[in-house]
Parts: sequence; C-alpha cells; structure tokens
Amino acid sequence: MAGNTFGTYFKITTWGESHGKALGVVIDGCPAGLSLSEADIQTFLDRRKPGGSRYSTPRKEGDEVTILSGVFEGRTTGTAICLMVPNTSQRSGDYSEIASYYRPGHADYTFDAKYGFRDYRGGGRSSGRETVGRVAAGAVASLILKELGITLCAYTKSIGPVSVNTENFRREAILTTPTCMPDEESSAKAEAYLEECMAAHDSAGGVVECRVDGMPAGVGEPVFDKLDASLAKALMSIGAVKAVEIGDGCAVSSSTGTQNNDPFLSEDGRITKKSNHAGGILGGISDGSPIIVRAHIKPTPSVFSPQETVNKNGENILVRIKGRHDPVIVPRAVVVVEAMTALTLVDLLFAGMPSRMEGLRRFYGCPSEQD
Amino acid sequence: MAGNTFGTYFKITTWGESHGKALGVVIDGCPAGLSLSEADIQTFLDRRKPGGSRYSTPRKEGDEVTILSGVFEGRTTGTAICLMVPNTSQRSGDYSEIASYYRPGHADYTFDAKYGFRDYRGGGRSSGRETVGRVAAGAVASLILKELGITLCAYTKSIGPVSVNTENFRREAILTTPTCMPDEESSAKAEAYLEECMAAHDSAGGVVECRVDGMPAGVGEPVFDKLDASLAKALMSIGAVKAVEIGDGCAVSSSTGTQNNDPFLSEDGRITKKSNHAGGILGGISDGSPIIVRAHIKPTPSVFSPQETVNKNGENILVRIKGRHDPVIVPRAVVVVEAMTALTLVDLLFAGMPSRMEGLRRFYGCPSEQD
Amino acid sequence: MAGNTFGTYFKITTWGESHGKALGVVIDGCPAGLSLSEADIQTFLDRRKPGGSRYSTPRKEGDEVTILSGVFEGRTTGTAICLMVPNTSQRSGDYSEIASYYRPGHADYTFDAKYGFRDYRGGGRSSGRETVGRVAAGAVASLILKELGITLCAYTKSIGPVSVNTENFRREAILTTPTCMPDEESSAKAEAYLEECMAAHDSAGGVVECRVDGMPAGVGEPVFDKLDASLAKALMSIGAVKAVEIGDGCAVSSSTGTQNNDPFLSEDGRITKKSNHAGGILGGISDGSPIIVRAHIKPTPSVFSPQETVNKNGENILVRIKGRHDPVIVPRAVVVVEAMTALTLVDLLFAGMPSRMEGLRRFYGCPSEQD
Amino acid sequence: MAGNTFGTYFKITTWGESHGKALGVVIDGCPAGLSLSEADIQTFLDRRKPGGSRYSTPRKEGDEVTILSGVFEGRTTGTAICLMVPNTSQRSGDYSEIASYYRPGHADYTFDAKYGFRDYRGGGRSSGRETVGRVAAGAVASLILKELGITLCAYTKSIGPVSVNTENFRREAILTTPTCMPDEESSAKAEAYLEECMAAHDSAGGVVECRVDGMPAGVGEPVFDKLDASLAKALMSIGAVKAVEIGDGCAVSSSTGTQNNDPFLSEDGRITKKSNHAGGILGGISDGSPIIVRAHIKPTPSVFSPQETVNKNGENILVRIKGRHDPVIVPRAVVVVEAMTALTLVDLLFAGMPSRMEGLRRFYGCPSEQD
Repeated sequence: MAGNTFGTYFKITTWGESHGKALGVVIDGCPAGLSLSEADIQTFLDRRKPGGSRYSTPRKEGDEVTILSGVFEGRTTGTAICLMVPNTSQRSGDYSEIASYYRPGHADYTFDAKYGFRDYRGGGRSSGRETVGRVAAGAVASLILKELGITLCAYTKSIGPVSVNTENFRREAILTTPTCMPDEESSAKAEAYLEECMAAHDSAGGVVECRVDGMPAGVGEPVFDKLDASLAKALMSIGAVKAVEIGDGCAVSSSTGTQNNDPFLSEDGRITKKSNHAGGILGGISDGSPIIVRAHIKPTPSVFSPQETVNKNGENILVRIKGRHDPVIVPRAVVVVEAMTALTLVDLLFAGMPSRMEGLRRFYGCPSEQD
Repeated sequence: MAGNTFGTYFKITTWGESHGKALGVVIDGCPAGLSLSEADIQTFLDRRKPGGSRYSTPRKEGDEVTILSGVFEGRTTGTAICLMVPNTSQRSGDYSEIASYYRPGHADYTFDAKYGFRDYRGGGRSSGRETVGRVAAGAVASLILKELGITLCAYTKSIGPVSVNTENFRREAILTTPTCMPDEESSAKAEAYLEECMAAHDSAGGVVECRVDGMPAGVGEPVFDKLDASLAKALMSIGAVKAVEIGDGCAVSSSTGTQNNDPFLSEDGRITKKSNHAGGILGGISDGSPIIVRAHIKPTPSVFSPQETVNKNGENILVRIKGRHDPVIVPRAVVVVEAMTALTLVDLLFAGMPSRMEGLRRFYGCPSEQD
Repeated sequence: MAGNTFGTYFKITTWGESHGKALGVVIDGCPAGLSLSEADIQTFLDRRKPGGSRYSTPRKEGDEVTILSGVFEGRTTGTAICLMVPNTSQRSGDYSEIASYYRPGHADYTFDAKYGFRDYRGGGRSSGRETVGRVAAGAVASLILKELGITLCAYTKSIGPVSVNTENFRREAILTTPTCMPDEESSAKAEAYLEECMAAHDSAGGVVECRVDGMPAGVGEPVFDKLDASLAKALMSIGAVKAVEIGDGCAVSSSTGTQNNDPFLSEDGRITKKSNHAGGILGGISDGSPIIVRAHIKPTPSVFSPQETVNKNGENILVRIKGRHDPVIVPRAVVVVEAMTALTLVDLLFAGMPSRMEGLRRFYGCPSEQD
Repeated sequence: MAGNTFGTYFKITTWGESHGKALGVVIDGCPAGLSLSEADIQTFLDRRKPGGSRYSTPRKEGDEVTILSGVFEGRTTGTAICLMVPNTSQRSGDYSEIASYYRPGHADYTFDAKYGFRDYRGGGRSSGRETVGRVAAGAVASLILKELGITLCAYTKSIGPVSVNTENFRREAILTTPTCMPDEESSAKAEAYLEECMAAHDSAGGVVECRVDGMPAGVGEPVFDKLDASLAKALMSIGAVKAVEIGDGCAVSSSTGTQNNDPFLSEDGRITKKSNHAGGILGGISDGSPIIVRAHIKPTPSVFSPQETVNKNGENILVRIKGRHDPVIVPRAVVVVEAMTALTLVDLLFAGMPSRMEGLRRFYGCPSEQD
C-alpha cells in the first residue's frame, strides 16, 4: 500500500492512469526560491517522445504540463508543487479486448491478483504513461542539481546486440537520433536491427546508462540508504527494468581485487581516483568521481506474434495483440532513467545536510567549536 | 542521515561497529505470537562463518546473540525486539596504521568526506561485521515466512570465472562446501581458483543467487515500492554488491519479446507460467512463480599486493595492506543476501494486507458486500 | 521539508494555495474495491461552508471536486487517487496590501522567516482553504470506516463562553445550525455572542469535539504511534488549534486515580467500561469504548480593530485589516476535525493488521498453529 | 506496527520492557562530531528518579547507561548510537497476580486485545520504564540544541489543585524539590496534598510545562509536520498524558481575537512579539519567541483502594492492587517531557535545512544567485 511516493526529503508522489483524466505528480520538499516555469518542465516531458521516430508509438501525446500549486511569481515557494498533464487522446476502444485476458509480460495478471480487478485501458497505472509524473518531477530535481553544479547525461548504450561505440560519443546526438544513442553510426545499426524485429513481429530490449558529473564526495547514507542502493531502487522501479549496475556492475564478479580497486590520487590538493570501476560510489557514499549507473530494459512485451495465455475464465487461449506499440521502449526510457537518478541525488543531498555538527553550526550561524 | 533503518512495516534498525562493544539490531513491527529463541537466530548467524574454510578470516567471531527485549515466555510480544551480539575478539592494534591513509576500494575516504573523521578500526561501521544485525533480523523474517509457507534458498552461483553447474544442484551442499556452492565439483574448481588468487596476493568476486518458493501472487506495491525495486535496494545495500538482477536480469537487454515473454498457463484452476524469465515478478508484483534474484559481489578490496593511494596529509603513497582478510567474501555474503531478501518479502507482505476492501472487511469481521 | 503528507499506510498529500489554480490531495494506499463517486466527496466539502451562515465568509467557494485518477467504473482501483478542486473566485487584488506587513496571529512572518518570501494572496498555503484537500481525503477515509461499522460525529462544543447543553444533543442540528452546534438553544446564544464580537470588531474561538462509535479494541501502535498521539498530531496540525484533549483531557490533571479510573465490566461475554474518562484509549490503544477528542480553536486572527505590527521594512506600524473574514472559524473547522480523525483511524487500522501471527496466517490462508 | 520510532531525520527507536534484560534506544541521524560521554546521558537519566522523594517508587533503579555504538574517541561518528540500560532489580514475583486480570486505567486489556497476550511483569512495554530510552535519547538531542544556543526548561506546573506561583519561579528548585516544582512554597503545598492522597489510598495528576529559549524563527514544516503538531504527538505519546497545550492552549477557545493576537514589534532591527499567547509558534512554524508547551498528566492508575474490574475468564471481580507505586508520576515525567520536546526540535531543525535554495547553495559552497 501507499507505494506511489519516492524520496524522504525531496518526496514525490505520482498519480494517474493511461486513460484517466490526467496524470501528474506532487513534489513535496522542494526548496523555496527556485526559478521554475512550465517551459522548464515541458523540455523534459518532450524528451519522452523521441523526435518523429517510427520506433515510438504514433499515438499523439501532447503531454502539456500545468503547474497547479507551489510556484508564485516564477519561483517555488517551499510548499507542495502539483504538476498535471491531462490525457487528451485516449481511445479506450482499442483496449476493450484485453480486459478479458492476461497479456504475457504485462502486469495484467498481477494487478488482478493483488487488487481483484484492474483498469485495463492501456495498462492503467502500469502503463508507461505513468512515467509522465516521474519525468516532470525529475525536471525540477535536475534544475536544483544544476544550481549546485551537478549535471546528468543519460543515453541508450545498446539496443539488442548493438552497442554504442564510446569513441564516437557525441552528446548532441542523444537528442537527435531516433534511438537516443550518442553515436549516429551505432544508431543506424540499431535502427536496422529494429526493422528486422518489426518485420518478425518481435521487439527489442536494451541498456540505458546515466553519467553524473560534478557530484561532491560525501553524499549517501550508510547503511541502508546508500547512494547505490537508492539508485538501484529508483531505476528498478521503472516498468521494464530487470537489472541495475553501478560502475563496472556485473563485470566485478569475474574481476580481481587488483584489477577492480581504483587507486586514489592526490592532485593539487584534491583527491581523485586513477580509474572509476566503482562508478563514483564507495561504501554507499559518493567519492567525487562521475557516477555511472546502467539499467537493463526488457523487450516490449506487446509483440504482434501469436502468444499463449489464459483468459479471465481460466481457459488457455492463443492471442494476437493489436494496437500501436513501440518495438522498443529503450529510447523513451532514457529521460526516465535520468529523472529517477536526479530525484535520488537530490533526496540524498538534502538527507546529508545534518551529517556533521560543524555543518549544523555553520548553517544555523553558531560560532564554530574552538578545539 | 538516519539511514540505518530498512523496511516500513517490518522495520529493522542495525547498529554497531567492527570494534565497538557490540553490534545488533532492533526489529520493530514483528507480529506477536511468533515462537522465537536465541537458538533460532544463532543458526543464521553461524552461517556467516562458512565452516572451517580457509577462505574466510581466521579471526574468531563467537557472535553469540542475546535477545534483550520483545520476547516473553518463548514468543514475540509485538513490541520492539532488540538483538545484541557482543564483540569479543577485537584487536584494534592491527588497524592503527590504516588510520593514516585511504585504502583503495574501501569506504575510508568517503566516510571522512562525509563525516569529517571515522572509526578506522576494522572499517568501523562499513565493516562486513555490520551484517550481523541484518542476518539476525533476517532469521526472524525467515521464521515468519516459513509459517506462511514461503522458503528461501541462497547460494554462491559463481566465483571469479567458475560458475556452478545447475544440473548438479544439491541444496545440502550449500551448507557444507567452503564456497557455499550447491555443487561440490564446481566448488572444488572455485577453490582451486581461489588458491591461485591467494598465491598472486589477489582476491576474487562472485555472484550470489537467491530463490524464493511458495510466494503468493499479488505482493509488491506499485509504483515505487515494487517488489523488484525493493529487492534491488535491499541487495545493493550490502557492502560489496555492484549489480542486482531479477530473473533473466541483464540478459533481457539482448533478448526479444517473443523469447522473453513467459506464456501464462492454466492448470487445475491455477494460473502459472510456462517459463520464468521474469523471475517471479511482473509490474513489480509477485506472480506466484519462484522469485529469482542475483547480486554481483566485487572482489575483496583488501589485497596484499602493493597499492597506490593517498594519505591523510594528501600525499601520494604506496601501501601494502596487512592483517587477516578473506580472498573472497562471496560465501559469507550468501546468508546476507538471503536475509535481505527475507526482510524485503516480509515488509511487502505486511504492506499488502490493506490492498482490498474485501480483505479489510474479512480481517475486521465485517459482513462482505452483497453486490 | 516534505511536510504535506499525513499517514503512513493510508497516506495523503495535500497541495494548493488559497489563490492558486486549484487545491487538492493525493490519496495513496486506499484499498481497491471501495465504491467512490465525486458526489460522495462533495457532501463532505459542502460541510466546510455552513449553510448560509453570516458567520462564514461570503466569498463564493464552489469547491467542486473532480476525481482525476484511481477510480475506475465507480470503484477505487488501489492506485493513487488524485482529487482536485479548482479555485474559481480568487480576487487577488483584495490581498495586495498585506504583502507589505505581517498580520498578527497569522503565519505571514513565520513563512517569510522560513522560506524568504511568501505567496501572500489570501494567506497562500497557510490559508484555511488548505483544508479542502484534508476534507476531500477525509470523505474517503470515512467511507472506509463506515464499511467497517465505525462512525464519526464532530460538532461545535463551545463558542467563546457559550457551551452546548449536552442534554439537548440532537445530531441533526449539527448540519442545520449556523454554528454546527448539536443544540439549537445553545446555538442561538452563541450567535448572539458572535453578534457582539462583530459589533466590537472582534472575533471568537471555540471547541470542536469528535466522537467515534464502533471502534474495535486493539487499534493504535505503541510506543510513539499511539492512537491518542496520532490524533493529537492530526488535530494540532489544523491551522488554528492550540490544544488537544482526549477523553477528560485537561481535567485529569486535577482529578484523582479513584475518580479517573474507568472500571472494566463484563457483560454477555463482552468487556466494556463503566465510565469513559479515558476517551476510549488506554496505553495508546483503543479499548472499544467511544473515542472522544477535542480541539481548542483560537479566535480568527483577522479582526477589524486596529493592530500594532511590523512591515517588511522593519518599521512599527498600525494596521486595520480589510476584506471578508469570518468572526469565528469554529463551525467550518468541524468537518476538518472529523476528517483528520477519520484519516488517523484508517491509518492505524491498516497499521494494525500485521499485529499477530494468528491474523497473518488467517489472512494469507495458512493453517492455524496447533499448540 | 512498527510504532517504536520517533522522528524522521533525527530518528530514535526505543526498546525494552520493565522486567526484561535491558531497555534502551537506537539514535539514527545524530551528526558526527558531537562530544558525547556516558556521563552526559546519565545526568538526564538520574532526573527520572527525583531525589529521595517518598512520592516516587522505592524500587532501586540504578539505570546505568552504556554506549554500545556510534561514539569513537569521545565523539559521535554519524553512525547509529545504541544506548543500553540493564534492568537490575526486577522482582517479577510482585506482578504474577496481575497476569490474571485487567487493571483499570492501565494498558493490560488493550495489549491483550491487540496482541493476544502480554508481558504482564510490571506493565511490560507499557511501563513507565519505557521512558528510559526516550530520556537517554533526549539527552543527546539536548546536547545538540545547546550547541545551537537553544535551551529547554521543564518543570511541574501543578499537582492536583496546587499550581506553582510563577512569581516565585526559581529554576534551581526544579532539581531540588521532590515535586520538581520551581517554587519551594508551592511544592510544600503539593506535598501536603499528596500526603492526603496517600492516606486516602488515592493518587494525583498534574501538569508539566516546558519552555524553550533561543529557538530561531522559521522551524517547523507546514502542513502536517508543523512544530506544534509534532510537539503534540511527542507529548501525547507519553504514557499518562491526556491533553497537550501550546501557548495559551485551551484558554484560546474562550478568548477573543484582539486579546489573543500577539502584536509584532521591531526593535533594533529584530522582529519580536509584545506578548506570547501563541507560545512561540505561528502557522506551525517557530516565530522566535519562547516556545511554551504543557502536558496534562492523569493520576497514577495504580491506587490501593479496591476497584471493580474483569479477569481473563471474563468474570467481574473486585481487586486491590499491591506493590510499590508512586502516588503521582508528574515529577518523574518532567524530564520525559523535556526529552520529547528536545527530540522534536532537533528533528525539525534538521528537516528545515533544505528549505531555501539560498541555504542549499551556501551549504554546498555554490555561488549565490545574482538576480
């Protein structure tokens, strides 16, 4: 119960279903004095629908955000911010059939098992549209991080068997390729792979990576609210994610200590690391190096091939899913991964403020201790 | 701040450092009427020190648990349960040197960055001994699950390049092999690999897998407290874990929809799945199939080869770590992974009780609705 | 930070300012299968504007609620419910003057002290209109309670020096008297007193009492989430409340043990109490008797007499507040007290479900223990 | 469930029963670098047993505290602090009889109703001894507040009909009078009243007041985590408290706006108030004036007169409670009220740190905005 909230200090609660009146989010704990407009948020929302791609659903989603509360004269007031995105193009008719059976790979069966029934229209609350609230809140978190000198960059690292060539990394390409890959060449290969999948009435998965620059050392709360643990929850809470890696991730299990340890290095009075296998996190606390996280995303479960399943009468049937479905959801997940990463970082940056008496005294204007 | 608590409904708070007076845990939210003795918990704690293995630290850890509160006449009372394990064999002298520099791959630097100083003895709070509290609490969670017909089985799946042969799976072997592998033959190979590592003054990582049987469908809280998201946080909060997988995990990103989807199947009025790529979780909710999770554990960072690092004066130095250190921590992590999985499941089972009006009415003895 | 959420299991987050686009609430943790319509909620919201009374602000507040999410085909789905009430009759011009100074008894100064600036229009977030979200959520909580056989009745117990005569208690009168008193005669006296206050450009306070019938014994969580402690927080969080009493409340401090103890009584196999000084709560847990809580509400701080205060330039000034202000807010607070009580009860009813192994086993359909 | 935790940012979890092995508390979220010794905490614990008074139980409670974790070389490390107080003088024999019936005014019946059975020895978890953990944690909170220039002073304001004469207020007397009154003369009268009560086999209640000086303006989180709401919960969670007042408290309900409003006043560039009816809190946020809270405490329910009640077989019986019981618990509650107030203040001071972008930028060393 009550699982629609993320964060403790910078707390967001998302609401809304695929075919309800609207979707949105309440942000509780946003500091006062942040410059915030609907346009700031819209930029992020627009990234959910990669530009003109034929790999994303042709369903028009205007997704225009309205700020309902918490902003006055262009600045946040410190009170709860409610952001709303009306649903404008629901065609419930498309979905009436799926009310009667359980789509493989979807949450139809488990929602029924849990709640006794479900809003079957477009997946209801388990639809990818649920991420609208996450992305809108992530936009606000990103603005806060930016003011603290922290920047995020998420992108598609692979689709099916096609991985990006990191030597060709061009940040601008992320926003222009239909795959959200930072490398046009790899993107073209991935597109060719997707064409094959579509021709075979099949779908593809992939990997999204997010890199954080400018993160100060010392953020993350041992023992259970570690930075990496919190990121893992944040990313695994995204619909189709089945694995989360930090830094070298899975590769560490077959590495050795001498290979995997990152030597510390002192340069100009600043401590850095000679390598970053750890992905910027040691003991659950940021170490000042870039933070690297990856999410493995499963292939779209809505494939157009015939599938075996069960209907609500408990009969074994063969179904062929209709409608409009992306052959891959990875490109649309990029901004969601970035949003969830930003939300986690802000929450832990706030959480860490009372970590030291010295910081407390300074914050509340008390004289520093003399010993 | 305040990151030493895990769970919302079945809530544990661990405390204690490697070389302090004691370590322990407070369990808040344990139902009344559970039969519980110190012996029940001791069995789990004893699994933290795999039997006579030369791959685990020779430091004697008696780790004898005392129940300080919450149990009366052999049963839990519903009040907070405090479990304490005194530290008996601290030899702080061994650790005095590491006070002056930052060990690569350890949390020394990040603790200093966060808190301004640290309890350097044996890693203090970031020591593997911190898991004593987790395992003690996990024992209680496992007893609750057992009463509900839910059983867990964690084991070492791989060490370095050596993976277990699942065809030889023997559950009893987990408790008898020094590697906690369920397959003696693979274990022997892994032991040989560890000998090589030790000879090379190096260390190894590995993978722990946990399988849950008997889990009812319908457990897990959309959107952010999904079962998989909660498991990811639980496992990634364990010291050396750098990646978490659910079901097919990372493999999904290069799979296709038709391969990855699990067809539903109706048998004798019960709905199951023909395969379990999903690892027992769909849409963040258990689907009634076995739950499968994996944690990738990095090689022990304390290697005996010389390493570059920085001391507290900011000077670049070369260090050679002394003392007693496991060449691999994977076998000792097995029971920790099982404990964290159990704690997550209990928390979400409790969370899910008010999911339906029908269940509420039944629980509080109200007449069922007639329409 | 992040203080706009109430409850842990049945969790509400309110949002909105007096003169923003809308106010509302997100309810997270409402069980699936509750019959819920906008009309159900509207009934509660309409009670915020006591019928045609000249003691409540003549500002037209349509306060029409829309269900944006979480309800499908007339029933809750178990997902987050967002309720929105648009602000329709803001006249910001009325409030522009108060931007420049701090009204005594209001939160103007403390909001500035905390956040650096404030939305001054109509009190912004500290306006009484903030309770719209509470009342809308309280309506849903009340419907759940009703299904469990638990009913609430809040009313005005006193206004200024005029207390209701409990011998004349008529429940219907609560909804018809302009004071929300359950006794027409006392209400008439209170109205006369209010006329005097208005003539003197002054305002009045009063007491709201809420009685809960049908509460089962055993609800409330020792030690800190006691039923009385949770009610105290719930009621004291309402804008103008300065004291909260349970049962005999303040009177206990001058009573004696023999007077104040309630003897237990067994009747027809049911345990009750011969008296109810305790107000239905012992040791923080409901005892099966009616729950009695009271909130003391301060006089409306917006009086039309001249008042000394300070402006934003730090100058001492004399002000005369203009605009439309209720001479008493007690009648409008009645439904808010009832809503907050209902929200607290639902949260603790849910929290208590995993209190016993026996209940857990029954809930999850496991065989009962045999010893 | 899981109600043994107080606070979100400075979080304490208490554990232990009257006759178990030990009682204690885990403090999670204490900043690193606070000087802390067992003697610092012992001073507070010793105040739980007012000096040599014949109004407090003669049972010897050594109550010697041990710091089990979280402190290294005399300073807090930022990790969880576990404090333990062993129970040394349990004589369970005294309590065996009460296992069979429900004492009026106690939690015996409600614990059975909730949990199915109870630890009946000395009240188990509902004993006044449970406050040991609160007071130990409150000592740590008070030390933090002291470093920020915030001081607390709690005292007995009345016992039965005898109130202190505020004109004779002498702070030192609080620690020396057997009543913890700040006025020897009133204390003598109260003592005489208590003699009467004891002679009549009866008991007395009273009022504890706590005053906080040095509180900065701007602390408290609208809407639900208001400073006054949080204090109300904190104080009402103490065993025998039945009412909580802030500032003028109950008196506001019969006051008028012109009387109750506190005019603001600017002096030497500092904003204060000419009066303090509000008790230092406006809109749930501290206003810089002293904070004033009061708790009304019921008479000790263990009276030696015969009482009607019910036994576990459901029979109506007459009982006469034996053993050692204070005729009044008010003096012992003084330090508990102070502790709970301190805990609340620290929690909200920490919560408020991320309230403004300006403060965030300053804290994290970012350049201030230029517009």
